[in-house]
Amino acid sequence: MLEERIRFKSLMDKVTDPDTACRHIQDGTNVFISGFTAGYPKLIPKALVRRAEAGERFKINLFAGASTGDAVDGVLAQAGLVAWRRPYMSNRIMRKAINQARIRFKDDHLSRLSAQVRDGGLGEAHVAVVEAAGITEKGHLIPTMSVGNTPTYVREAQKIIIEISSEPTALEGIHDIYIPEDPPYRMPIPIYRAGDRIGKPFIEMDPDKVVAILSSQEEDSCAVFNKPGEAPRKIAEHILDFVAHEIRKDRMPPGLPWQSGVGDVANAVLSGFVEDDFFQCIDIYSEVLQDAVLDLIDLGKVKAASGSAMTLSHRARERFFNELYRYREKIVLRPVEISNSPEVVRRLGVIAINTAIEVDIYGQVNSTHLMGSQLMNGIGGSGDFIRNGAVSFIVTPSTAKGGKISAIVPMVSHVDHSEHSVDVVVTEYGLVDTRPLTPRQVAEAVIKKCAHPDYRDLLWDYYQRAIRTSGGHEPHILSDAFAFHERYMATGDMRVG
Amino acid sequence: MLEERIRFKSLMDKVTDPDTACRHIQDGTNVFISGFTAGYPKLIPKALVRRAEAGERFKINLFAGASTGDAVDGVLAQAGLVAWRRPYMSNRIMRKAINQARIRFKDDHLSRLSAQVRDGGLGEAHVAVVEAAGITEKGHLIPTMSVGNTPTYVREAQKIIIEISSEPTALEGIHDIYIPEDPPYRMPIPIYRAGDRIGKPFIEMDPDKVVAILSSQEEDSCAVFNKPGEAPRKIAEHILDFVAHEIRKDRMPPGLPWQSGVGDVANAVLSGFVEDDFFQCIDIYSEVLQDAVLDLIDLGKVKAASGSAMTLSHRARERFFNELYRYREKIVLRPVEISNSPEVVRRLGVIAINTAIEVDIYGQVNSTHLMGSQLMNGIGGSGDFIRNGAVSFIVTPSTAKGGKISAIVPMVSHVDHSEHSVDVVVTEYGLVDTRPLTPRQVAEAVIKKCAHPDYRDLLWDYYQRAIRTSGGHEPHILSDAFAFHERYMATGDMRVG
Repeated sequence: MLEERIRFKSLMDKVTDPDTACRHIQDGTNVFISGFTAGYPKLIPKALVRRAEAGERFKINLFAGASTGDAVDGVLAQAGLVAWRRPYMSNRIMRKAINQARIRFKDDHLSRLSAQVRDGGLGEAHVAVVEAAGITEKGHLIPTMSVGNTPTYVREAQKIIIEISSEPTALEGIHDIYIPEDPPYRMPIPIYRAGDRIGKPFIEMDPDKVVAILSSQEEDSCAVFNKPGEAPRKIAEHILDFVAHEIRKDRMPPGLPWQSGVGDVANAVLSGFVEDDFFQCIDIYSEVLQDAVLDLIDLGKVKAASGSAMTLSHRARERFFNELYRYREKIVLRPVEISNSPEVVRRLGVIAINTAIEVDIYGQVNSTHLMGSQLMNGIGGSGDFIRNGAVSFIVTPSTAKGGKISAIVPMVSHVDHSEHSVDVVVTEYGLVDTRPLTPRQVAEAVIKKCAHPDYRDLLWDYYQRAIRTSGGHEPHILSDAFAFHERYMATGDMRVG
Repeated sequence: MLEERIRFKSLMDKVTDPDTACRHIQDGTNVFISGFTAGYPKLIPKALVRRAEAGERFKINLFAGASTGDAVDGVLAQAGLVAWRRPYMSNRIMRKAINQARIRFKDDHLSRLSAQVRDGGLGEAHVAVVEAAGITEKGHLIPTMSVGNTPTYVREAQKIIIEISSEPTALEGIHDIYIPEDPPYRMPIPIYRAGDRIGKPFIEMDPDKVVAILSSQEEDSCAVFNKPGEAPRKIAEHILDFVAHEIRKDRMPPGLPWQSGVGDVANAVLSGFVEDDFFQCIDIYSEVLQDAVLDLIDLGKVKAASGSAMTLSHRARERFFNELYRYREKIVLRPVEISNSPEVVRRLGVIAINTAIEVDIYGQVNSTHLMGSQLMNGIGGSGDFIRNGAVSFIVTPSTAKGGKISAIVPMVSHVDHSEHSVDVVVTEYGLVDTRPLTPRQVAEAVIKKCAHPDYRDLLWDYYQRAIRTSGGHEPHILSDAFAFHERYMATGDMRVG
């Protein structure tokens, strides 16, 4: 079994067990792992935890493609083994440690991290730990369900540990690996259509740097996608209606590719295409591909789907693996610096759909911090797509916590994306195209069309008082701008008791 | 004189006077003008004002490349003739009208506006009014001191009014006009080095759309650059030292091109190269080229300087016009969608230097609004460069208004650029590279190294209280975050009595 997957035979000598392999990782080691919601190593983290449980005291600096599963971020944070983590995470235990400043975290635009690693900005790349479906005859790596930053990590690493996964070898060929030259000598990234392949189907690797190979039977933890609720379905409807209308009015060309963020709402938006008649066949140029993409491929509604990773539910995963030969023709997995490249996103004219924690009446967006201070997950690739897409949608259900939190607030408590980069605000109640509007017109429309009815009077009251007391291009009352948040922190409800 | 400049002879018939020409502009006309700090039409605005003074009541919607001089934004705002203005302005009278909501204004990323005009997002392009140095034998336009959005305006306009300037005809050849195809069929923008020429030295024009040609003796109003004060000189020193150090440590490649924003501080930063020994010869890939660029060319320190416009002092302008043959070899003026293109900026790895109104302890940047509500000038191209540059510097003197305003605040009152896009914060006191730091580390360093000593204790006190009361990844006290601003609005001083 392992022999078949390690086609570069001299590397068979490096096969060992996790406990031996993980000795290459010591206190202070910079560990660069594969993984971008999926495709992360599963054995080495566990072995590190065993050492911690046996009383060894050490901390590593952990860099991945984006988030990983509980099997990495969760167990390592739990065991107190992480000093630094970049560039993104979505794990409950790790989040808590980051918010308590027990783990150092910096929230990076995903498109930039590989270049920062290449220029040494994250320190020496001591050890790369990567999951692979196999090793080619020439000693190159075949990734699994994600690419992320792995090509750069493998190139820069001093030592490489490989976990050979038991996932289908038929994954070979789905990846397109291209590391751009760094400035000032970079040439154009030659992607002209979402499905273009510009690189190699494997990650180039110097086999001499491989210090250990492990055989893994572990699987990625699967995503759980809830059947789209009322709000996400409405949001999807608003977006599809709007884009179809813009195309019919000749204000948007047909054929722009779609990007949709990560999670339930994003999945629901793409699911909206299933029953839509206007969009016959779309291109997807996104970051993470989820279940809805497979559904659309099955319906013949996808020309090509490009991403850096696949996050599938258990059922979709089975379906995907069973018919890989078919899906592989439509799906391309790329390094995240290519899937999220400002150059390519702007060139293709991506229609970007990203979720927010909260949006304010002027269209400023908070994607990362609850109540201004507590990190939720991170900015991920949202900035890459929002800032450079042809049209950027920000979507959120109008309320959270059973209505106690309004996602539309007078002023967001943290800003990740400014109004200048955000084109259209969407909740289940409606949609506002901010592009032809002044900030004041945006405020009036967002309050009337997007806010939950429970909050419209409160928001309107703030806005009117702001006009009277401050005036200006974007009227705000600084002493009252966070009244919603302060009320929530005091009473557990943003509504006035 | 005019005959020499209008080489497409049949257009001589269109020569007329401003009062006749401006009859093509009526109430509700969308007027798309040339101009990007320089190169704006001077006669038509005055003629419009004369009509207003004679009692005619009408309003136009005014779109330019960026800001224009008093001769456009000033006089038209004063006369109450502007209903809408986009995408940027820096005029005192117009600013006041915008802040009082008497003129509608939307603040756009400059790199995006041309595409929005082409897809009809700004309405029909009724009339283009453009300043030109001449008209070629084939009926194409030779721009003057800026390109901005003019190529797209000329292409989309139903009618074109041309003001033939008396500026040197030797400007011909300095421009490089390239309008990219729009998505989804755009190809790479083939700029690989700052000085590459990829287009034509004129703006293609359909001569049949020309309705009037005027002969103009008016000049652009000149910039006034103060001799760099202590703060800008220190800021320049910090930046040059830092970049030289990064290059020596092999964390940054040599040869990355430089961008520097508009104004005194930005000019001072480039002036810093004059006496610097480390940087022998640089590339400039910027938006507006100012006096310092000519100084550096004279010293043989510039390989190529690319921008969308030139803003020169009176003396520099004379020098430039006298030796155009020499400067023309080094300088390229491009459409702003190319000078500010995310694709090109990321590819070349531009070192971006932009100024801020205020920066907060975590590196969030306010470029546009005073005290959260009052628009200053606009975002301009800062977002284009900050978000996509290889390294982004945000620079500001540590205080304003004689020390009464701190440019470093607990929380900025408006966010244009998020901490994720900002790499290095610089004041005259020092510089913080935020890239390897957590938000808390950034706060500590910015307070200690960048804040003015008068404000360090106040900032430190806020930060410590925020850690104690809110904690989190980016500790903030929402009820106290704007205390500096509130104090200033109440007492005229951010310092405690």
